[in-house]
Amino acid sequence: MSAKFPRRVKIVEVGARDGLQNEPGDVVATSIKLELIRRLEQAGLSYIEAASFVSPKWVPQMGDAAEVIGGIEPKPGVTYAALTPNLKGLEGALEAGVKEVAIFGAASESFSQKNINCSVAESLNRFEAVMERAKAADVRVRGYVSTVMGCPYEGEIAPQKVAEVADIMYQMGCYEISLGDTIGVGTPLKAKRMLEAVSGKIPMPQLAAHFHDTYGQALPNLLAVLEEGLAVVDSSVAGLGGCPYAKGASGNVATEDVVYMLHGMEIETGIDLPKLISAGNYIMDQLGRETRSKVARALG
Amino acid sequence: MSAKFPRRVKIVEVGARDGLQNEPGDVVATSIKLELIRRLEQAGLSYIEAASFVSPKWVPQMGDAAEVIGGIEPKPGVTYAALTPNLKGLEGALEAGVKEVAIFGAASESFSQKNINCSVAESLNRFEAVMERAKAADVRVRGYVSTVMGCPYEGEIAPQKVAEVADIMYQMGCYEISLGDTIGVGTPLKAKRMLEAVSGKIPMPQLAAHFHDTYGQALPNLLAVLEEGLAVVDSSVAGLGGCPYAKGASGNVATEDVVYMLHGMEIETGIDLPKLISAGNYIMDQLGRETRSKVARALG
Repeated sequence: MSAKFPRRVKIVEVGARDGLQNEPGDVVATSIKLELIRRLEQAGLSYIEAASFVSPKWVPQMGDAAEVIGGIEPKPGVTYAALTPNLKGLEGALEAGVKEVAIFGAASESFSQKNINCSVAESLNRFEAVMERAKAADVRVRGYVSTVMGCPYEGEIAPQKVAEVADIMYQMGCYEISLGDTIGVGTPLKAKRMLEAVSGKIPMPQLAAHFHDTYGQALPNLLAVLEEGLAVVDSSVAGLGGCPYAKGASGNVATEDVVYMLHGMEIETGIDLPKLISAGNYIMDQLGRETRSKVARALG
Repeated sequence: MSAKFPRRVKIVEVGARDGLQNEPGDVVATSIKLELIRRLEQAGLSYIEAASFVSPKWVPQMGDAAEVIGGIEPKPGVTYAALTPNLKGLEGALEAGVKEVAIFGAASESFSQKNINCSVAESLNRFEAVMERAKAADVRVRGYVSTVMGCPYEGEIAPQKVAEVADIMYQMGCYEISLGDTIGVGTPLKAKRMLEAVSGKIPMPQLAAHFHDTYGQALPNLLAVLEEGLAVVDSSVAGLGGCPYAKGASGNVATEDVVYMLHGMEIETGIDLPKLISAGNYIMDQLGRETRSKVARALG
């Protein structure tokens, strides 16, 4: 392995949003979400995706987004972010006091068409208004690109296509681009090639990896991109949102397992692993489910 | 990543032995074991660890070792191996017609003392007779070294200690040394350092990785050693022997997940992944358990 490994990695904790949003079953109480967020802060997480401002009709689990954001007692140095897929969502988020938001683009035309019924270019155009309003409100915008290593409808995605979409979002003003292997089909060589294409256009410090573990490949794929110098990783405490027995589950990689690997490689995260495990166990107890973190199982 | 990745990797399939031996519950019928072995052959596995010649009093699951070996219809080009921890086991294996055996050493003094009540050096001395008899019978011996990245009793294990024990077994005549992360605590940097120490004494083509997934680190650890040129990997179909909810489970990495990663990296294995998944699903159906392979779950 080369010497390019970062000394420190920033973890973007997506469990409270991406995770809970993709868990089946009852809507989780706002108080439980807030307690989870508090425990994540205490474990040393500095970036917590906390809510999504979307239609409660489509995503009932995120129906309390304003209450969650309003209920957080912000800790200095911690970023609390919300997903805002459109201007209406952004207005709601701003009203609730959000300081950072995220938007979603796809690298796959078929995925974009099937999911939001428009082309990739059209979907990006629609974000112009969101970007403008966010800029006016002095709120930073993080950009997600989905299906960067494969699409459920068209299969392989060319690294250049990923780079193109990522670059458009970066040029639109997203300060960081998170590269999502939405269906978890990637492998290390593919991850490396995809990152090479993207980092040809966007500086490495502005890139993040959001790799799903659907095929068990998230950690080796992360290792491959860390080796190239990438230093921001999205993950989900307890593997929230990665229900292993649900078809089409999002398959989030567990933050505990990522942190264990990083610490074992002498890469700093600022995270206290036992406290993180305890935060994960808390939410899984509330959901009445087993943790999907192997580290939590081994040490718990 | 460097250009050292092997073009082809040999998979040593340990599910029928190491896997079943560590599954809780009833003894599996000989006919089921034989059907599993047949399906593994059909999936393209060229090396199948099939049985263990140990006391049925201690390991009832392996009590039919002679029947299993005797029941195999050998396919050309496939190696069927048995574990033979002592001379008595070896005699039984030879009688049953085994052509290749394996012995076990530990890199940790405490592990050796607690498990077999003697020092590492004593345990290796005891293998002298096994090696001699195997040589006389023209049977190849594979050597396992356990606890290469950590010990449940003494924690860290020095890479030099691993290299020392591995080298003794290699000098004794083992043609291949399999390096076992018995409790799955390793991380990629540790794996690389351990391999560097061992490959300073033993040529890389004579080394194998036997990494457990207890902490979810098996695939990244494998990626790290493959990058150094290692080209033999031990794994267990369906993750047999890795019951995620049993404390102290062996945590074998699933062959399906390893093969998915390798094929995605354009590394040949000679294995047909759908047939492998089907072999794994067969044995898990027989055991009445869910597969532990994420690839099998995603594609199954």
